[in-house]
Amino acid sequence: MKKVSIYDTTLRDGAQGEGISFSVEDKLKITKRMDDLGIHYIEGGWPGSNPKDILFFKKAKNLRLKNAKIVAFGSTRYKGKGVSRDPNLKGIVQLKPQVACIFGKSWGLHVKYALGTTLAENLKMIFDSVKYLRSKGMEVIYDAEHFFDGYIDDRFYAVETLRQAAKAGANNITLCDTNGGMMPHQVESIVKEVKKEIRIPLGIHTHNDSEMAVANSVIAVKAGCVLVQGTINGYGERCGNANLCSIIPNLKLKLGIDCISDKRLGSLTEVSRYVSEIANMIPRDSQPYVGNSAFAHKGGVHVSAVAKHPRTYEHVSPEKVGNRRRILVSELSGKSSMLSKAKEFKIDFREKSKEVKELLQKVKHMESKGYQFEGAEGSFELLMKKTIGKHKTFFDLSGFRVIVEKDEKGKLRSEATIKVMVKGKEEHTASEGDGPVNALDNALRKALERFYPELKSMSLTDFKVRVIDATEGTAAKVRVLIESRDERDEWGTVGVSENIIEASWQALVDSIEYKLLKEE
Amino acid sequence: MKKVSIYDTTLRDGAQGEGISFSVEDKLKITKRMDDLGIHYIEGGWPGSNPKDILFFKKAKNLRLKNAKIVAFGSTRYKGKGVSRDPNLKGIVQLKPQVACIFGKSWGLHVKYALGTTLAENLKMIFDSVKYLRSKGMEVIYDAEHFFDGYIDDRFYAVETLRQAAKAGANNITLCDTNGGMMPHQVESIVKEVKKEIRIPLGIHTHNDSEMAVANSVIAVKAGCVLVQGTINGYGERCGNANLCSIIPNLKLKLGIDCISDKRLGSLTEVSRYVSEIANMIPRDSQPYVGNSAFAHKGGVHVSAVAKHPRTYEHVSPEKVGNRRRILVSELSGKSSMLSKAKEFKIDFREKSKEVKELLQKVKHMESKGYQFEGAEGSFELLMKKTIGKHKTFFDLSGFRVIVEKDEKGKLRSEATIKVMVKGKEEHTASEGDGPVNALDNALRKALERFYPELKSMSLTDFKVRVIDATEGTAAKVRVLIESRDERDEWGTVGVSENIIEASWQALVDSIEYKLLKEE
Repeated sequence: MKKVSIYDTTLRDGAQGEGISFSVEDKLKITKRMDDLGIHYIEGGWPGSNPKDILFFKKAKNLRLKNAKIVAFGSTRYKGKGVSRDPNLKGIVQLKPQVACIFGKSWGLHVKYALGTTLAENLKMIFDSVKYLRSKGMEVIYDAEHFFDGYIDDRFYAVETLRQAAKAGANNITLCDTNGGMMPHQVESIVKEVKKEIRIPLGIHTHNDSEMAVANSVIAVKAGCVLVQGTINGYGERCGNANLCSIIPNLKLKLGIDCISDKRLGSLTEVSRYVSEIANMIPRDSQPYVGNSAFAHKGGVHVSAVAKHPRTYEHVSPEKVGNRRRILVSELSGKSSMLSKAKEFKIDFREKSKEVKELLQKVKHMESKGYQFEGAEGSFELLMKKTIGKHKTFFDLSGFRVIVEKDEKGKLRSEATIKVMVKGKEEHTASEGDGPVNALDNALRKALERFYPELKSMSLTDFKVRVIDATEGTAAKVRVLIESRDERDEWGTVGVSENIIEASWQALVDSIEYKLLKEE
Repeated sequence: MKKVSIYDTTLRDGAQGEGISFSVEDKLKITKRMDDLGIHYIEGGWPGSNPKDILFFKKAKNLRLKNAKIVAFGSTRYKGKGVSRDPNLKGIVQLKPQVACIFGKSWGLHVKYALGTTLAENLKMIFDSVKYLRSKGMEVIYDAEHFFDGYIDDRFYAVETLRQAAKAGANNITLCDTNGGMMPHQVESIVKEVKKEIRIPLGIHTHNDSEMAVANSVIAVKAGCVLVQGTINGYGERCGNANLCSIIPNLKLKLGIDCISDKRLGSLTEVSRYVSEIANMIPRDSQPYVGNSAFAHKGGVHVSAVAKHPRTYEHVSPEKVGNRRRILVSELSGKSSMLSKAKEFKIDFREKSKEVKELLQKVKHMESKGYQFEGAEGSFELLMKKTIGKHKTFFDLSGFRVIVEKDEKGKLRSEATIKVMVKGKEEHTASEGDGPVNALDNALRKALERFYPELKSMSLTDFKVRVIDATEGTAAKVRVLIESRDERDEWGTVGVSENIIEASWQALVDSIEYKLLKEE
């Protein structure tokens, strides 16, 4: 079986993505997780361009990685400089990494406009730089930046740049589609041509500007590349880098290339979501393999067929990549979705009962008002229980008031007062908080915890606000989704209102009722 | 030049995407826009499965389209039924559409589990249904559902299903990768094989479960397909359908296939964002060609090279697809980004002045606190003007108080009181609103409009809330982005705080100051 190495550049090229920024601690955490996933090379940063990265390399030495080698990134030497005094190369050498990856230019346009030098000098810069790093005992990967554009522009010169790197002793030469403009047939034929000329192992590095990054990577492997560079979730500048969360399962499950173990593949979804959390990017639901919707069935035809045989609408088993099947509740789905969902919640509905009809109508009505149960299964379960009369009330609200004040010195104060009836007793409490919703949450808990001590084990873990009708400014409706958890479970609840405090209140109340009902 | 037709199924398959639901009015609006874009076929819905869709087809007859034909979707007849009494086919025939598209089964697994019938009966169902619709004078497209899976499972049977459709007079046979699991080399070789056997025009319909939908579509066209089915922004069930916003420019700009005119291609970005607004989906910034980040440059090396020659880091000109270049402000970018940005705002910075350094430091500090200027250029321009002393204060806040109350009947009331000093006078006003931020906005305007009547021409158009540290529940920080506009311009402003009211206040104040400074 063919051996292919996975090279991750989330920490360097991925961090160029809009809205992404990693601290040194973030980078160390991600490195650990990627090592567990079985990634072979982890590019940690560009010490010559970013001082923060130097600290990362120093700390990373204590990580005790099981699989991965840490790679320091950089460029070929500057024009007209000796290698040993080049700040960029020096930055790498001082860190003594196991592996160095340096990029050089393959395309005349870049030699002229970005480097401002001659074609001949560029060849020397490549040769000198690779040779110097090799002489320091490092494994060297040479990234041929813009190789495909360069090849199309002047194939002889482009291949000549690779020959310089090969002659200088590079361990791997990676062909880059830096602008992400290549079509798969171009990548296929160019990789095949290069393989005839260059005898050392080739890698591939693509970008997604034509939505071809994953395809181009897989095709390059089929054409002979043995190393794939990419990022978790495809993060990266402009449209992103090649997405390793799709490439790894494609190589393993579709091409039969054993790049990571089956067991590790089973943690792919978790790693994807972990990195998106650290990067503070909203996970993309529709993301192949690992997205929350990747195995979610909505159309009535699909839902009933999947119930009979999953392969009818699933290209692979979700468990293989650590994801799960979901049946969505929406106006497009009919009774069969409701029944699947009820089964999931262990609620006994008879197929033709009037309760199912009533529930469907309720859901449609609420969806038309802006509710969405796809991310709020806690609220949906409560709605089901209300419909079949298996719900009970734990408290009644007599009223609340939330006040936010800012004084002339800019000092802020948020306070909530709340009056509720619990088990026949009136509780009237108040609390402050970091903001109005936090104050309200604190006041409600204060009122209830005396009666329901089990609430102490529950906490809010996420709070999302989505403006539903974005065309009316602050008077538009907002939907609030709250995620809560205790030691065992995690549940989502929803609220909708023109008033963000009221929407938050609804979701808070659902979350607490869900917990109390669960504990009965 | 090869002719390829574009077939859009946003309104039917796209609506199966998680979180998407279109009203009849939504569908009519989108149809109009897609006709303007030059789409050849617009699939309007499945009349047999969704009564809402029947209304759409009736109303769509009055649209007076310039380019597109409207397509009614459906399935082959049920097993054991005559075509003329089949509810599904009757649903199509009654609407008298120009074009019908019906799907049938190519894969034994589906014949057995989804249809519950025999392989022989399935062949008859295909033949009868296509023949019946053709006999009613319609153009018929036959969608061979799960064709590639079926071909791999039993190529003789799969091709035989196509022969039935061809023999019955189908005008086009579209090969579907319904589960989205195919690799490009499989699509290429199977399309080539089918082309040898089937003489009528072929189409391609792919899904994105392996992140290959766009690649598979483009490769199928190169292998001989002349019709491509997909959706705007790739909306669709699970991981979505093939994304027409990438396929159209790839066909035109990369393969030289003139499927829509140059001028219409220039409206692609607008159409993409329009549909995402109607679908109420957040546009994906990193989306190829049309995303807000698709031509956004962040890394210092990239920014300075693009300033010298755009082709260095852009695979096509953004204008060709109606998008634009953006230079991002972030800790990774250095002086050159700041200077490009200043030029854009017509602010005169000298390259080495201490103001540039001061600004960079401020930006880094604010970014570390959670601010983000990438979507808030209004706030960034104010920050620049503050740094060079070109900013002035229009009012001073003495304090505000926001109250949200809910009584025992569930009635809500939001009120804001505010005290400001304007031009030496104290204004103390109050206002109600639909929610706390709306009340605050109303109260602030009430206080200021007497002094600055130009504020009347400005309104808030969007309001976004993002929880920055999602791991701490309601006590986490929130970032509020506000979009505002007047008759001429549009600007974004930002605020960050643990308190959502305070974050909104900061963004509101920036928005108003931006407007007043602009009018001076």
